[in-house]
Amino acid sequence: MNPGRAAIAPLAGPAASGHCHPVRVYYEDTDAGGMVYHANYLKFAERARTELMRSIGFSHSQSHAESGIRFVVSRCAVEYRAAARLDDALTVTTTVARIGAATLLLQQVIRRDGELLAVLDIVVACIGREGRPCRLPPALRAALAAGGQPSLATPLSK
Amino acid sequence: MNPGRAAIAPLAGPAASGHCHPVRVYYEDTDAGGMVYHANYLKFAERARTELMRSIGFSHSQSHAESGIRFVVSRCAVEYRAAARLDDALTVTTTVARIGAATLLLQQVIRRDGELLAVLDIVVACIGREGRPCRLPPALRAALAAGGQPSLATPLSK
Amino acid sequence: MNPGRAAIAPLAGPAASGHCHPVRVYYEDTDAGGMVYHANYLKFAERARTELMRSIGFSHSQSHAESGIRFVVSRCAVEYRAAARLDDALTVTTTVARIGAATLLLQQVIRRDGELLAVLDIVVACIGREGRPCRLPPALRAALAAGGQPSLATPLSK
Amino acid sequence: MNPGRAAIAPLAGPAASGHCHPVRVYYEDTDAGGMVYHANYLKFAERARTELMRSIGFSHSQSHAESGIRFVVSRCAVEYRAAARLDDALTVTTTVARIGAATLLLQQVIRRDGELLAVLDIVVACIGREGRPCRLPPALRAALAAGGQPSLATPLSK
Repeated sequence: MNPGRAAIAPLAGPAASGHCHPVRVYYEDTDAGGMVYHANYLKFAERARTELMRSIGFSHSQSHAESGIRFVVSRCAVEYRAAARLDDALTVTTTVARIGAATLLLQQVIRRDGELLAVLDIVVACIGREGRPCRLPPALRAALAAGGQPSLATPLSK
Repeated sequence: MNPGRAAIAPLAGPAASGHCHPVRVYYEDTDAGGMVYHANYLKFAERARTELMRSIGFSHSQSHAESGIRFVVSRCAVEYRAAARLDDALTVTTTVARIGAATLLLQQVIRRDGELLAVLDIVVACIGREGRPCRLPPALRAALAAGGQPSLATPLSK
Repeated sequence: MNPGRAAIAPLAGPAASGHCHPVRVYYEDTDAGGMVYHANYLKFAERARTELMRSIGFSHSQSHAESGIRFVVSRCAVEYRAAARLDDALTVTTTVARIGAATLLLQQVIRRDGELLAVLDIVVACIGREGRPCRLPPALRAALAAGGQPSLATPLSK
Repeated sequence: MNPGRAAIAPLAGPAASGHCHPVRVYYEDTDAGGMVYHANYLKFAERARTELMRSIGFSHSQSHAESGIRFVVSRCAVEYRAAARLDDALTVTTTVARIGAATLLLQQVIRRDGELLAVLDIVVACIGREGRPCRLPPALRAALAAGGQPSLATPLSK
């Protein structure tokens, strides 16, 4: 179950910089073992990806309404190193590892005060109105390749 | 991100048989994309593992109360092939792929009417009262190695 | 915060009988306090309402696809009496208390081995394709008034 | 099902001021109906109560570790007025309506751009190490009565 480490080597250049998103742990996230329920790290990671997208001008709902595209997770691999607990203040750092024609490969790392808690490798696929794979919007591709700096002249949602 | 296919070849013999657990999709499981939210397949899989354990006489709460051990997910890899939707009747088939000293490797397959929707490779670790890895209870190991047929003479929770 | 007890007196006759739905508590349902997270009782109740509907021939997805209607919760009140815990086997009993023009009032009781854990009073509203309230489908109304016994001659989803 | 409006008239004075907590809607919060799943408003409200507590120096985990007390929801009533949707930026405003010996009555209002989406009346009970009701910590009571302004001289968690 080695999730293809070679494939997730970050891009050289600005795409490697990483987007940070803070997450607070609430009761809803924990389980009777006293730690964050393992599936909920995927929720934290999805929030972080959504905010990375939003930071470059791309919102899920607007994009779906305007062009019918949606992003779905097609693969994920999670390595749990240490448990997050109630009230913890976490940080999710997201790095775009590879930009394909219709997919994105992201590495996401969840930390508490610098301590590594979980590493996630996520493949996200772009799908069109009929549910079939479709090419990434060029403006999104350009903004991600530029390291998450949006082109102000080209709103991504169009 | 190839999650180590070689490692999850099922055991020869009875351990390869597979435990089946039905899951119905409710509104709580779906998202605004009209499909089951990707993290929720991990919940379905965890229910199935819990029922596999229960079927051989091992309940999480009783075991924790009696011997302080708990099982935590230490790695998982999920491949999403097709989307489950509201009202779908799913089946989770769980196969014990490898029994380690303090870990279990399981492969779980989620299907709808025979159609493959998701494949999960899960590593579960046994941890003791202080949160450190500990050896699998011998009775549990024996029952799993026997293909999930519990030894009636040896209640697993003791 | 007395949630209108007078309003939820069950109908006389067959509608008072009550529909039972079993729920098992898994890790996903619990929180770091060792009990079921309070919001999750609403999930259990929603599963039970869905199965009550299904038992009289009405599925959410089919109904939405065919006639565009959907049921949404417009009010709920929950009284928590005792905590459910990991591995508990619960029962949700659902009684239709009142059938309005475009709403249903249901009382749902969650028990563990007969012990009362929670009482929920739920108002469900029927909404149409444009998101506005609409009348309950006549076949559904008839089946609910008959105490949840569907008329075999009149599939509810049509 | 009128959830006791008389009982939730806010305190006169500073306790009526209201604590605001922002919530962003992600895919995890929505359902196949395209709106936020009804039970998830309770999660949003619980996050807001936790942050209100934290703002006056009281954290759940620290308090539980030090004095064994925990807060549980003993009643809730929710009125859903309009649906929240994916990507919405919501605000949860929490007002302490009544401070009892061992309980708190809170009113929580969820809005989007000033539009009222949901009103929640929540009774929270303080329970001790053995799971029985216990009196609110005096420092917490004082801080809440002062309108959520903590006494700097008296850390609440002690």
